Amino acid sequence: MSDKHSPTQPSAGLPDCSHLLLSRMGPALVVTFNRPEVRNALSLATVEELLSVFDAASVNPKIRAIVLRGAGGHFCAGGDIKDMANIRAAAAKAQKEEGKEQGEDPFFSFNRSFGRLLEAAEQLPQAVICVLEGTVMGGGFGLACISDLALAHKDARFALPETSLGITPAQIAPFVVKRIGLTQARRLALFGNKLSGEQATELGIAHEAFETTEELDQALQDALGRLVRCAPGANATTKALMLSVGEKPMHELLDGAARGFSAAIQGPEGQEGTMAFVQKRLPAWADFENNQEEEK
Amino acid sequence: MSDKHSPTQPSAGLPDCSHLLLSRMGPALVVTFNRPEVRNALSLATVEELLSVFDAASVNPKIRAIVLRGAGGHFCAGGDIKDMANIRAAAAKAQKEEGKEQGEDPFFSFNRSFGRLLEAAEQLPQAVICVLEGTVMGGGFGLACISDLALAHKDARFALPETSLGITPAQIAPFVVKRIGLTQARRLALFGNKLSGEQATELGIAHEAFETTEELDQALQDALGRLVRCAPGANATTKALMLSVGEKPMHELLDGAARGFSAAIQGPEGQEGTMAFVQKRLPAWADFENNQEEEK
Amino acid sequence: MSDKHSPTQPSAGLPDCSHLLLSRMGPALVVTFNRPEVRNALSLATVEELLSVFDAASVNPKIRAIVLRGAGGHFCAGGDIKDMANIRAAAAKAQKEEGKEQGEDPFFSFNRSFGRLLEAAEQLPQAVICVLEGTVMGGGFGLACISDLALAHKDARFALPETSLGITPAQIAPFVVKRIGLTQARRLALFGNKLSGEQATELGIAHEAFETTEELDQALQDALGRLVRCAPGANATTKALMLSVGEKPMHELLDGAARGFSAAIQGPEGQEGTMAFVQKRLPAWADFENNQEEEK
Repeated sequence: MSDKHSPTQPSAGLPDCSHLLLSRMGPALVVTFNRPEVRNALSLATVEELLSVFDAASVNPKIRAIVLRGAGGHFCAGGDIKDMANIRAAAAKAQKEEGKEQGEDPFFSFNRSFGRLLEAAEQLPQAVICVLEGTVMGGGFGLACISDLALAHKDARFALPETSLGITPAQIAPFVVKRIGLTQARRLALFGNKLSGEQATELGIAHEAFETTEELDQALQDALGRLVRCAPGANATTKALMLSVGEKPMHELLDGAARGFSAAIQGPEGQEGTMAFVQKRLPAWADFENNQEEEK
Repeated sequence: MSDKHSPTQPSAGLPDCSHLLLSRMGPALVVTFNRPEVRNALSLATVEELLSVFDAASVNPKIRAIVLRGAGGHFCAGGDIKDMANIRAAAAKAQKEEGKEQGEDPFFSFNRSFGRLLEAAEQLPQAVICVLEGTVMGGGFGLACISDLALAHKDARFALPETSLGITPAQIAPFVVKRIGLTQARRLALFGNKLSGEQATELGIAHEAFETTEELDQALQDALGRLVRCAPGANATTKALMLSVGEKPMHELLDGAARGFSAAIQGPEGQEGTMAFVQKRLPAWADFENNQEEEK
Repeated sequence: MSDKHSPTQPSAGLPDCSHLLLSRMGPALVVTFNRPEVRNALSLATVEELLSVFDAASVNPKIRAIVLRGAGGHFCAGGDIKDMANIRAAAAKAQKEEGKEQGEDPFFSFNRSFGRLLEAAEQLPQAVICVLEGTVMGGGFGLACISDLALAHKDARFALPETSLGITPAQIAPFVVKRIGLTQARRLALFGNKLSGEQATELGIAHEAFETTEELDQALQDALGRLVRCAPGANATTKALMLSVGEKPMHELLDGAARGFSAAIQGPEGQEGTMAFVQKRLPAWADFENNQEEEK
């Protein structure tokens, strides 16, 4: 049995990357962190590449999902120590020149860039799927926390080691609280608990844990198979709606949502969806492979 | 052994209904969706009847709980397709008359009415109990999400199928997020996952799942038996307090809550409750059947 | 095998207490509710003592955790009935003198004091650990809900019995919702469900449940062993950050967090932590016992 969705060349219009591998798997763009020698630690250069890829992908209608995973058996070990050393040097230099006009705090900028990455990843209109294997720490833990679907290997290792290094999981902690609630997040951060993929699934960081890489890959295929049956525009609207819960009073939220509903049902997706339902056939968007053919 | 709480005639003062069956089960008003031929789909007419019933019930001190269930083995299949067709016709007509003064968007009003139903149901001062069997979709899924107690048959089938039809679960999605959190809600909506009653219970949509209808009915009786021991006024105040968490700063919430406490303890319930405790007897409100007799 | 952290005399600078026992267990201050004859019910006098202890402990750098537990096999049975009787007398007197200038509502003040206790306990910069045995009710239930780590005996009994007494869990309910979410909190409060330690752990009130007191005590030792490896300042900053999630927009939160990161990494903890990491040794703060020796 051949895989329905096997990796191919990525769409045009995506940036060239040095630290990321880009490929297609059916409806998904697969973004692979490709610095296995440092367990895919997120250097600032990698963060910038990711932001460019997200930017380009977010407006590409052929990309229905973004899969994040790591090369070499690890998802991502967090920030890069080399960057940190460079920042220390820059900060020391800035301190010496204290008499001159001060620029922005380099530690602030360094740390904040991970938060910008997480905010951008969270706001992607497409479904974001994380495949969590090996080390999942720091910024990698943060990316797991913004995913719409997180599939974990049972032996993956999750941790927030920051406070044991005398620093804070500053950009990550808020996303951990949003993901699993204050009760579990506070214990994790303050007591330095480590979690397996199974424990991370019990807490809700991941949605499902798997015994083998084969099962994990199959679950990814299955999820993409279900995803293509959901209309991409309706999905994007629903995701944005869900992310905005708690930010305004319920009745305002529902008013806006009803306007979204009205636009959807009168738009091309709503018309095709209703017609397909009446005609007892799949809607056009669900037939991803033939759609792709037509566009060639 | 006879059931302590078996269905009888409803209280006076409730509206006549065509699409709902109203009956009493001890302290509870049982509202049964009664359009089994369409798996109890919520037509706009049904929504209006429900709103009238909620309105009348909310001020009726003899009603201590509202049980929502469906006739014919299904809870509720969501919105009614026939209404949708009528709205399309109305919208088409409105578009033709575009030169004239425009009224409200009929799709907006149609969709928003389900949100109004959920808001009204959530704000009921009494405990709301949903008995979830068979199909639980769309607006039915939404009603499950506002219940104070949700009892599910293990074979019930839950889904948010909207995006597979090219539309959005606009009025329901915010209540799903409020119910089970963003993490599980986003996966459910974007990947079109279907859930059994057991899976819905694991996620927290329902509180408990049961193997048989008999067990489900017994759990309902047991819950009503526990409910009558809680003072109705204190329950209403506590429910309103819990629903308002997150809407204002904690210290303001606690100030208001302390005023509520002071009113409760000096009011008739607080006085009766304290006296009953000292006298080692049940408070008057717990003896629901004799209370009813006295009032005859 | 001797316990690494066994109780000793508390630090100087803590207030004298009549209703609380204070002792040290390695890095932790152990606060034991010591009115076993009333299952450690929280009298107003006890609340005031707790507030004084929290006040003194919060600025004591030698205290890295605060352990709350009860003497005699019970954690805490909630408010004290005797106080309630005194308040009733005071309120009655106040009503008779209605012609005169009115003071503050004594029931309001009485109830609000428990909320002040929970707010102060939640804001402690140190990790708060609750050891939950026997009765965990009312204010005791509330304290469990603000803990960073809650360890329960499987036979502990949790309940919110207020509404069955005609009153409201006014100061506690908001913290229950914050702890376990609206879905489970509403059922618990409105139906008077009782929970075992195991059930409380399933809902997330506690983090872990244990078969025996010995296992519970060992888990406490283990948690303290992990805690000392986390830098106290970084932990305090992280805890405050997590508690503030939802109170302001995410980007503001992340800006503030990045400033906290910058301060941490340039401060003594960040410098020591980074150096220890490079030198492959434990940071100074992790070697709690030797640190204590030096300070003698």
